[in-house]
Amino acid sequence: MKAIVMLSGGMDSAVTLALAVRKHGADEVLAVTFDYGQRHDKEIKSALALVKHFGVGHREVRIDLGQIRGSALTDDSIDVPEFKEGEKGITSTYVPMRNTIFIALAAAMAEVIGAKYIYTGFNHIDSGGYPDTRPDYVTAMNVALKLGSRDAPVVKAPLIEDTKRDIDLRGVALGIPWGVTWACYEGKERPCGKCNACVQRKKGFDEAGVVDPLAIA
Amino acid sequence: MKAIVMLSGGMDSAVTLALAVRKHGADEVLAVTFDYGQRHDKEIKSALALVKHFGVGHREVRIDLGQIRGSALTDDSIDVPEFKEGEKGITSTYVPMRNTIFIALAAAMAEVIGAKYIYTGFNHIDSGGYPDTRPDYVTAMNVALKLGSRDAPVVKAPLIEDTKRDIDLRGVALGIPWGVTWACYEGKERPCGKCNACVQRKKGFDEAGVVDPLAIA
Repeated sequence: MKAIVMLSGGMDSAVTLALAVRKHGADEVLAVTFDYGQRHDKEIKSALALVKHFGVGHREVRIDLGQIRGSALTDDSIDVPEFKEGEKGITSTYVPMRNTIFIALAAAMAEVIGAKYIYTGFNHIDSGGYPDTRPDYVTAMNVALKLGSRDAPVVKAPLIEDTKRDIDLRGVALGIPWGVTWACYEGKERPCGKCNACVQRKKGFDEAGVVDPLAIA
Repeated sequence: MKAIVMLSGGMDSAVTLALAVRKHGADEVLAVTFDYGQRHDKEIKSALALVKHFGVGHREVRIDLGQIRGSALTDDSIDVPEFKEGEKGITSTYVPMRNTIFIALAAAMAEVIGAKYIYTGFNHIDSGGYPDTRPDYVTAMNVALKLGSRDAPVVKAPLIEDTKRDIDLRGVALGIPWGVTWACYEGKERPCGKCNACVQRKKGFDEAGVVDPLAIA
């Protein structure tokens, strides 16, 4: 197995999975999904649908980040905020160290199965100020993994300089089944349309001139 | 709360806890113990006894590293090896990315509670070749945490250049109740005396000229 893809079930990781499959072949790709106590655990179903679509292996890793508290995504007592244009700083949907925790777990798995790469859907331009999706962070994690392990994989983030529009256009070319991907932080029957994840998804589809099946369903 | 101490229940983390308490005071220290599916979960009882001894707060974080497999410490199908003098390389008791996973989780908790430091008992001179206990690794993790978070704590490793003898002598001066600490990887009623953890513990006590209560009980 050459590559692990961190697959949340959202658009970014769906496009990343497609890129990894194109590069390495489906047989060499293992998708890993984290069940971390997220409010929108509905995205795990999306991940499973994407796994089926692309014909790759899959493992789910459970880590209850509700133990850590401090985020609207893992603590029901903190409401998901509505997106506000021009708002600076990090929102309450920030989950402290989420990607550092996920990368560490994926890297551990990569060492055990001998995978050389960990693909992530990180992108930072339209992604609301999360610090753990930026290029310098990825570089630093790669140094830490290398020094702190027997045989570290390399973290790749092929979308890192893309806008949401770029990601949508890539996804169209790669045949992503958008209807099964999920963004909304609320994780209810239908997307709320108001949270940061919904607003960024809509922006990407609008700017790319692509129809979002979830918006018309 | 100023400091989190990663407390396994072993000698190194016991001495580290004592140092953190001396520096910040017991009220400013939170000990965090990871229940990661370790074979020697007996060490968690040691951690609780140390918490009581030092009068600090405590939280246990569960993360099942058995999901990742690949280590004698978390996979019952892999035997704990006996220590062999002069053996090079990393033994099968290496848990892939263990400290990276633990630091990430502790750092997440530190952000939420506002702690500025994470104390670890890392030391590498007599510790059997684990890569994730070395000074360059700690530096790299601090860079990654800083870049990947809102308000990163700093990882401290006050014992990092100590031998096991140094650690024992420090511990005597700090009044560590050695009898409640635990090293043996087997985690049975009595220490096995043969695994790397037992051998290093004995070496430290012998070289320091200190009596190990567990060895004479």
